[in-house]
Amino acid sequence: MTTKRTAFFVSDGTGITSEALGMSLLSRFEGFEFERITLPYVDSVEKANETVEKINEASLRNDAKAIIFDTLVDDRIRSIIASSNCFMIDVFAAFLGPLEQELGQQPSDRVGRNKITENRGYDHRISAISYALDNDDGARTRYYNEADVILVGVSRSGKTPTCLYLAMQYGIKAANYPLTEEDIDDQKLPASIKSFKQKLFGLTIEPDRLSLIRNERKANSRYASMKQCNYEVEEVELMYRRERIPFMNTTHYSVEEIATRIMVQAEIKRRC
Amino acid sequence: MTTKRTAFFVSDGTGITSEALGMSLLSRFEGFEFERITLPYVDSVEKANETVEKINEASLRNDAKAIIFDTLVDDRIRSIIASSNCFMIDVFAAFLGPLEQELGQQPSDRVGRNKITENRGYDHRISAISYALDNDDGARTRYYNEADVILVGVSRSGKTPTCLYLAMQYGIKAANYPLTEEDIDDQKLPASIKSFKQKLFGLTIEPDRLSLIRNERKANSRYASMKQCNYEVEEVELMYRRERIPFMNTTHYSVEEIATRIMVQAEIKRRC
Repeated sequence: MTTKRTAFFVSDGTGITSEALGMSLLSRFEGFEFERITLPYVDSVEKANETVEKINEASLRNDAKAIIFDTLVDDRIRSIIASSNCFMIDVFAAFLGPLEQELGQQPSDRVGRNKITENRGYDHRISAISYALDNDDGARTRYYNEADVILVGVSRSGKTPTCLYLAMQYGIKAANYPLTEEDIDDQKLPASIKSFKQKLFGLTIEPDRLSLIRNERKANSRYASMKQCNYEVEEVELMYRRERIPFMNTTHYSVEEIATRIMVQAEIKRRC
Repeated sequence: MTTKRTAFFVSDGTGITSEALGMSLLSRFEGFEFERITLPYVDSVEKANETVEKINEASLRNDAKAIIFDTLVDDRIRSIIASSNCFMIDVFAAFLGPLEQELGQQPSDRVGRNKITENRGYDHRISAISYALDNDDGARTRYYNEADVILVGVSRSGKTPTCLYLAMQYGIKAANYPLTEEDIDDQKLPASIKSFKQKLFGLTIEPDRLSLIRNERKANSRYASMKQCNYEVEEVELMYRRERIPFMNTTHYSVEEIATRIMVQAEIKRRC
């Protein structure tokens, strides 16, 4: 039997960091089922009071204290939240003390400098996103000289989301080119990517997963059949090996993981 | 004068969480300049030893201990890293003890359950990304009934990256529709979006920032001129107010922040 608990991620920003950290920690307590509630932009007394109500309701409902992960900078807001019926984990406080000692400086009340860093990164990210969109699915090949990486793979192996994530998270210019049945039959790299061989990175995927995904697009088609998926995957992997193109199997990974593994495996330097 | 330190984010996963947390903490120590090095997939003794070398080099170079934020699950790997000349912050350990006490259960050695959660979210995210791509920039309007939100705004006000982020992070189906000079002149919502008024969310941006961005696309054009940008922004904001379309100014925010603020302001429920 699993026990229900509600986990709140409360932040005066997006809450994305406290949520990622908290979910990762909670995933290690397997006897529980955690309901996840993220509350971003809790930046006023009014919103803090509303949050307290939500927390108390959840604690009552589960007959057990809600777990709160907070990344609030304002002590006044945090003390309001702390007055609720909850078990609270103050993500920042745990580390600010030790860091203050090590660095010999008091932390400021405000999150600083992010603006600058962010703006520098911002332009890289936006232009990388444009690049990914313009060079998606082999739509355009004449700007491959600008690419940091060119993903190749059969249709629906995860190329587009990975390119977009590489752009968004790392500011990487990632193009992608679909390997068609014809390319695979010939066991030949298409001319338009052949000269960029050192930038190629292959994606592959388990045939049954590929068939499932393709069936969502075109149900009961030859394209989505197990036979066709088996064939394409087998042949494309053969081509990767023959052409010595580095590749990875995306089946069991999230987009974040696929993107980060490509960065490591292909030794690509992030741009933001 | 700022003091240089190197910050390492070491993980057996992507390192994205420890990096986000660590950067946020370090940004509050304004007297320092931190060089950021993220080392994902440190999952073997060999990689741990390589990491130790990198850390020791950085500490020597800066004549001050490198700061390490780690989210390593394997104690053996962590103890190797800890043997380096560094100031180490063990992100998980700080919270696992208190959580263990509160939940009355020992944490497992492995990050559990993420797979399931992730897979359920995965399909939502992938189909939301497809939706954003297919319904970008007014390319297609006949599936607006499926949209969770339709972003509107003048050219280059940040619609596309925001839609992609909404899809990637929250599994939200976000379409976007560009408001052209003609629409703005008339002060009339185009017919294709008029019937979806309750789904519309407007983006606006400071004219000088818009001019800068447009100049990168088409330098010295009428399109990028301050006069044109001033005009479009003024009129589009007038239209938002007149039509009672909720809107936000994107100038000083990152894509993450814009997306999350839209979720809150428009009360959109995440889908993953």
